[in-house]
Amino acid sequence: MKVLITGFDPFGGETVNPALEAVKQLDGIEIAGAKVVTREIPTVRGKSIAALKKAIEDVQPEIVIAVGQAGGRMEITPERIAINVDDFRIPDNEGNQVIDEAVVPESPAAYWSTLPIKKIVAELRQEGIPASVSNSAGTFVCNHIFYGLMHHLQQEGSIRRGGFIHIPYLPQQAAKLSGQPSMALDIIVRGLKKAIEATIMAKTDERHSGGTIC
Amino acid sequence: MKVLITGFDPFGGETVNPALEAVKQLDGIEIAGAKVVTREIPTVRGKSIAALKKAIEDVQPEIVIAVGQAGGRMEITPERIAINVDDFRIPDNEGNQVIDEAVVPESPAAYWSTLPIKKIVAELRQEGIPASVSNSAGTFVCNHIFYGLMHHLQQEGSIRRGGFIHIPYLPQQAAKLSGQPSMALDIIVRGLKKAIEATIMAKTDERHSGGTIC
Amino acid sequence: MKVLITGFDPFGGETVNPALEAVKQLDGIEIAGAKVVTREIPTVRGKSIAALKKAIEDVQPEIVIAVGQAGGRMEITPERIAINVDDFRIPDNEGNQVIDEAVVPESPAAYWSTLPIKKIVAELRQEGIPASVSNSAGTFVCNHIFYGLMHHLQQEGSIRRGGFIHIPYLPQQAAKLSGQPSMALDIIVRGLKKAIEATIMAKTDERHSGGTIC
Amino acid sequence: MKVLITGFDPFGGETVNPALEAVKQLDGIEIAGAKVVTREIPTVRGKSIAALKKAIEDVQPEIVIAVGQAGGRMEITPERIAINVDDFRIPDNEGNQVIDEAVVPESPAAYWSTLPIKKIVAELRQEGIPASVSNSAGTFVCNHIFYGLMHHLQQEGSIRRGGFIHIPYLPQQAAKLSGQPSMALDIIVRGLKKAIEATIMAKTDERHSGGTIC
Repeated sequence: MKVLITGFDPFGGETVNPALEAVKQLDGIEIAGAKVVTREIPTVRGKSIAALKKAIEDVQPEIVIAVGQAGGRMEITPERIAINVDDFRIPDNEGNQVIDEAVVPESPAAYWSTLPIKKIVAELRQEGIPASVSNSAGTFVCNHIFYGLMHHLQQEGSIRRGGFIHIPYLPQQAAKLSGQPSMALDIIVRGLKKAIEATIMAKTDERHSGGTIC
Repeated sequence: MKVLITGFDPFGGETVNPALEAVKQLDGIEIAGAKVVTREIPTVRGKSIAALKKAIEDVQPEIVIAVGQAGGRMEITPERIAINVDDFRIPDNEGNQVIDEAVVPESPAAYWSTLPIKKIVAELRQEGIPASVSNSAGTFVCNHIFYGLMHHLQQEGSIRRGGFIHIPYLPQQAAKLSGQPSMALDIIVRGLKKAIEATIMAKTDERHSGGTIC
Repeated sequence: MKVLITGFDPFGGETVNPALEAVKQLDGIEIAGAKVVTREIPTVRGKSIAALKKAIEDVQPEIVIAVGQAGGRMEITPERIAINVDDFRIPDNEGNQVIDEAVVPESPAAYWSTLPIKKIVAELRQEGIPASVSNSAGTFVCNHIFYGLMHHLQQEGSIRRGGFIHIPYLPQQAAKLSGQPSMALDIIVRGLKKAIEATIMAKTDERHSGGTIC
Repeated sequence: MKVLITGFDPFGGETVNPALEAVKQLDGIEIAGAKVVTREIPTVRGKSIAALKKAIEDVQPEIVIAVGQAGGRMEITPERIAINVDDFRIPDNEGNQVIDEAVVPESPAAYWSTLPIKKIVAELRQEGIPASVSNSAGTFVCNHIFYGLMHHLQQEGSIRRGGFIHIPYLPQQAAKLSGQPSMALDIIVRGLKKAIEATIMAKTDERHSGGTIC
């Protein structure tokens, strides 16, 4: 079994992307009998999805997890749902700053993650790693690739499972920004390994409350 | 032209629901030539949607706006998207506390609001009223009725426009809770009137960024 | 009996200072038999204290309350303690941006407010107005004038009571800034009136917990 | 040269106190030619100060740093000032829950830290460790021991330097609490070592802005 994990190159003025740093440390390792393959994805509208599809074609993974940075979050947050909109508050790495355009025109409003997000959160917390379900991946390139991924997997016939996991700033980023939460790289890496393991082991997701009142 | 506005009865231990207090003040008024009709909706899974459908049938409005309380938010937030999941962190007013069940089984993952949410935010800010687009209505009864509404409007053939607007706690609620933001009732009422007017006047939504990075 | 209330002119790029707007509405009114007199104070190191001392000399009040804006706070917050340091993260209105200098050299590290801060908070909450005790007035011009005031009152022989109350942004400020809490002007005015009344009526402060763990 | 570092036993329902865990790892190490000695202090009004004085008498350190947990903070925060008040929102570990009593009756309102707090923050950030100056240590046992320490050092004739540093929750605490920031133990330990080194090396503090507007 193969698991494809992707990370973005840095964006928004940052020189480091914790997602990419964490993802690099997973490359080539084996988890629960599965081989982890990693890829760097450009933080660019369209090109990111193209790069991801190419990687899926090359690697032929059973599981695909895109990982991205969520500045301001303090926990590892598997995303529940990808929505079909690009509404970029800042430009991407090639200067695209679109407002309210579809990720994939003429396509559904949203796709659910097919990762066992509740089980991932439960197992991370069990390991002492802060985690929560997130109900919005935003409307920037993270949500863009998440939607692009889920649309592609659905069009392939759902032979692979996939989803998106947001991770916090690294401490060295927070040290420069001041007033922002962070998570140490080794904890993020342990969290992602546990998330991969939980996904491999799960037939179906568990039922724990992960909701928000609003 | 008629506009139907709904508010929930109080929930989560509160004795007042600011949504309902605000909505009551709109009953029977005229905005931009349209008559505003209001209804109270039970904060109960299923019954809330049934009550809303009944109200639509009775009133035959061109526009339907459900209004709900978002404790912890500091602005009036029109919601962008309703998602097809009930994941109740607390029980509703009849004790239902479901986890990860569909609002409407065998139905799309999500529906877009058909209110001009960007225009509403722009006009409220213009009036000095704090407002932002929200990309998640949560997974409790607010999202439940929002999804139920949009599904119903779509099944009717999209002859009516509709959506959901979240409003903050009232000051008297925040005074008891401590450490929570709030908004004065008269500002909420002014904001909802402006939102109704913007919806009546808009043929299509404007294009302003209302996105979040994550 | 006379009560002197001061408000700052706008600072930090704002064109309105809610403290001043609120204070203006109190000018000349009578509360619990006392006359309220108000003064505008420049947001400038040194000059603000000089203006305040001059106002005290002119008005001869029994009670002095300086009011200032605390962007980001969501409640009316009477301050507990003034500290003898100026550490200005931004320049004041005449460009002074000092770091770690004393407000009054060779003077105590801090002075307690002599307002009944716990009673004020209790009475505001009773009225449905969000309020909390604050344990830090910051290190900018608000703390500067608060320290200058308490030092002056102590040197006079404590014949007058005094202190500082922070108030939130107004809604029109929050509408421009986005993502900031606010409080309606009429609620701030009601809150300040209640605070003045509580101060006049109190012989000593009440004992309610207003502490923070850190 | 000897440096005394203290940590509290767990409080507020926690089974772990990150301050204590971090402090334990410093015991007996040498930093910049100085020997680090550590002590556990009870989270109890009065007894904590007695235990600290006893430790100072035994160890005869040139530098004393008390370390405590600040749930909700995301950075390592050296405290600027200790205030002479106990206002306990929750009971301490022996059930004391006093309101507005002096830490040391008939004593000054506040004492400044004699640690180089600006230099500590600058050096931690330089190392990629999130840090900020804090202007309030709260009104619970952390501020209590901080005030007790500074009062004692002043009464001794200021032959030793001292202060208080707050640290965030550990990840395993945040994993149970949900929605709270945290910092990995090894980063906290590195941060405290750097703070000790900065204190040993500093003759006087540096002048960087560490202020807050309010």
